[in-house]
Amino acid sequence: MPHVVVVGGGFGGLHAARALARAPVRVTLVDRHNYHLFQPLLYQVATASLSPGDVASPIRWVLRKQPNVTVLLADAQRIDAATRRVLLSSGPTGDGAQSDRGIAYDYLILASGAAHAYFGHPEWASRAPGLKTLDDALEVRRQVLLAFEAAEQETDSAAQRRLLTFVIVGGGPTGVELAGALAEIARQSLRKDFRNIRPESARILLLEGGPHVLGTFPEKLRGQAHEALTRLGVEVRTSTVVTSVDTEGVMVGGERIAAQTVLWAAGVAASPLPRSLGVPLDRAGRVIAERTLAIPGRPEIFVAGDICSLQQDGRPLPGVAQVAMQQGAHAARNVIRAIRGEALEPFRYRDYGNMAVIGRGSAVADIGPLRTSGFFAWLIWIFLHIFWLVGFRNRFAVMGEWAWAYLTLQRRVRLITGERLWPSS
Amino acid sequence: MPHVVVVGGGFGGLHAARALARAPVRVTLVDRHNYHLFQPLLYQVATASLSPGDVASPIRWVLRKQPNVTVLLADAQRIDAATRRVLLSSGPTGDGAQSDRGIAYDYLILASGAAHAYFGHPEWASRAPGLKTLDDALEVRRQVLLAFEAAEQETDSAAQRRLLTFVIVGGGPTGVELAGALAEIARQSLRKDFRNIRPESARILLLEGGPHVLGTFPEKLRGQAHEALTRLGVEVRTSTVVTSVDTEGVMVGGERIAAQTVLWAAGVAASPLPRSLGVPLDRAGRVIAERTLAIPGRPEIFVAGDICSLQQDGRPLPGVAQVAMQQGAHAARNVIRAIRGEALEPFRYRDYGNMAVIGRGSAVADIGPLRTSGFFAWLIWIFLHIFWLVGFRNRFAVMGEWAWAYLTLQRRVRLITGERLWPSS
Repeated sequence: MPHVVVVGGGFGGLHAARALARAPVRVTLVDRHNYHLFQPLLYQVATASLSPGDVASPIRWVLRKQPNVTVLLADAQRIDAATRRVLLSSGPTGDGAQSDRGIAYDYLILASGAAHAYFGHPEWASRAPGLKTLDDALEVRRQVLLAFEAAEQETDSAAQRRLLTFVIVGGGPTGVELAGALAEIARQSLRKDFRNIRPESARILLLEGGPHVLGTFPEKLRGQAHEALTRLGVEVRTSTVVTSVDTEGVMVGGERIAAQTVLWAAGVAASPLPRSLGVPLDRAGRVIAERTLAIPGRPEIFVAGDICSLQQDGRPLPGVAQVAMQQGAHAARNVIRAIRGEALEPFRYRDYGNMAVIGRGSAVADIGPLRTSGFFAWLIWIFLHIFWLVGFRNRFAVMGEWAWAYLTLQRRVRLITGERLWPSS
Repeated sequence: MPHVVVVGGGFGGLHAARALARAPVRVTLVDRHNYHLFQPLLYQVATASLSPGDVASPIRWVLRKQPNVTVLLADAQRIDAATRRVLLSSGPTGDGAQSDRGIAYDYLILASGAAHAYFGHPEWASRAPGLKTLDDALEVRRQVLLAFEAAEQETDSAAQRRLLTFVIVGGGPTGVELAGALAEIARQSLRKDFRNIRPESARILLLEGGPHVLGTFPEKLRGQAHEALTRLGVEVRTSTVVTSVDTEGVMVGGERIAAQTVLWAAGVAASPLPRSLGVPLDRAGRVIAERTLAIPGRPEIFVAGDICSLQQDGRPLPGVAQVAMQQGAHAARNVIRAIRGEALEPFRYRDYGNMAVIGRGSAVADIGPLRTSGFFAWLIWIFLHIFWLVGFRNRFAVMGEWAWAYLTLQRRVRLITGERLWPSS
């Protein structure tokens, strides 16, 4: 039976593996984490509303009933397209040196996703964490909660002001959702917790380089999101480019904003894996794929999700879960067609809409003919996200958390974990 | 108003702070974590049944309605009893150097708890993690899950055997509960997840130095616990002393047991804080307290919980939550008496009983006249633990998790987090 290797257990890879369930193939899914992450809700882990277990499920568990899939916890380092092998970093019994451990494939579906890009400033990464993995989210949660703790102990008012200033760089859905959630933490969840500071006096800035937040949304919804954020007390600044991130805070144009916490929700760059293929990449490192999602000149390799660069109707497809899911499943179906000797089909994205949450009872939704904001949009968001969550257990847990949080304004998971107490200690 | 400083936000410290709610005092509670941990359920985080947020609540949140309490996230380093100050390690804005940051007290309640003790072999600590903090539990979970992943990728059968061997050192309640939960993970939760190994073939050894597991329980219950563990497939070895822990496994007497995973549930040692007091300590570093819980010669300092060494009816009090809670509250009431100029009262422990869970539907309970094991004991355990959990939100969340786990045999929180993929990488 042909061996299909899928690299990546995100939305693209998981949907590729599932679409191969009844195909006469052996499937190996490789991921460096043992969990599939429901990325659209990751900001809720970072802002202490949900537990890691609520937004992540073990990949093995998700695919346990699909006997033709083997899940391999490993870090794919490089593709050797000539010998058709995926080379892995040293495994559990390795000595840390680069080994030549690898797995052979007949067909390869690459869905290894994206990491953050810091506008050519990789040195900002340690200062301004982004939000891609569970560990990222726990680090953001840690930094946000520690900032309030440090402010409570600070006696100098300027230093206290800096500790209570939170800068979010990037006004896309993740940035908007983070800013809204931080505003609610400060104004509501922590209100009674401190004695020396007033958490509600925290300053939350959302900095967007383009002319609008939620730039991909219709104009009316962009404006409504901007207003809703402002009502929550978020300072929204558009056409504002960050020129420097340092230990003191950020520089925007000539202005310095002193801030302890800087969170990154701006650019992304594709995983470095496609670089080893020697095929044309776009500026963000993504593979410029054929319409069939195959790689030019390598009909046995397909790409899906954030590492795939594809235009549709003259516009690039966005890096969202829906695109990755549809591409993963499409790549898998094209693998089946190739095995059968049939002609491959071109991929066409069906856009079911976009949404972003601004706060409790407030969202914007752009779904087909429906363009709405406020409470109704928020209800739609809740139901769709619950529906999309992988694993019915997670659905109930998340519903329970949300119901409790809505009624009490509390965020239950306000835990500071990690060994170091303060950054300096 | 007199200033009462409480060091430690565990069962002892929290109950001390609560008992001072209506007293005419200012209270400062110092802890190096921002959360109170419900330690009796920590093994369920380590074995992927519960999320960290289910067994921990922010201390600020627990005490938010008590306006006379200030919570301070800081690491208490030393007591200067002469000047009545608690010295803290450098704070959030420190430069990492030991500072002379400190807080003055009129009365001090020390409840800083215990850490693991490795029978004079501190070098075993990195090899055999114990179970005291949330970070400990996440590390145990990580090691256990990674062992199965590594075994799945191992081709040498002896190496695979070693990866699937789990040694638990210490047959008290924590060791028994860990062993039972690991057996259930291997035999039930992971059964369908792997393709190259049979998780149910994992070998789980519980090593106890004394003649019985659950040595503090009545003889009948000890025997029933031993039998129940054996039925779950745990190899229980009593009168077995570990003489060495190394990278390959453990040595017991002259026998080598090759094991990737070694978990520590044996000795504890008191936090080092009391050493700075210059008062008599017992072998485990605990303060030999007066019957009033005051420290000899220092009537303004009280101790509670695992750092307090006290005999009652000729036997030392055990290091359990019930003792800590009662001592914390008693110490607080004696502080109030001291302020009023009244005579201090001696502490007397009321033993409400002991319990340990062996697995799904199986426990032993020794509660007053009631000595029972099996399903009924397990139901009692569930209800009492739900009742004792701090915060009603946690209660519902934990009940939901348990109901789901009971019905499906699944453990939802099987997440491997932490930056390194394999120990060697």
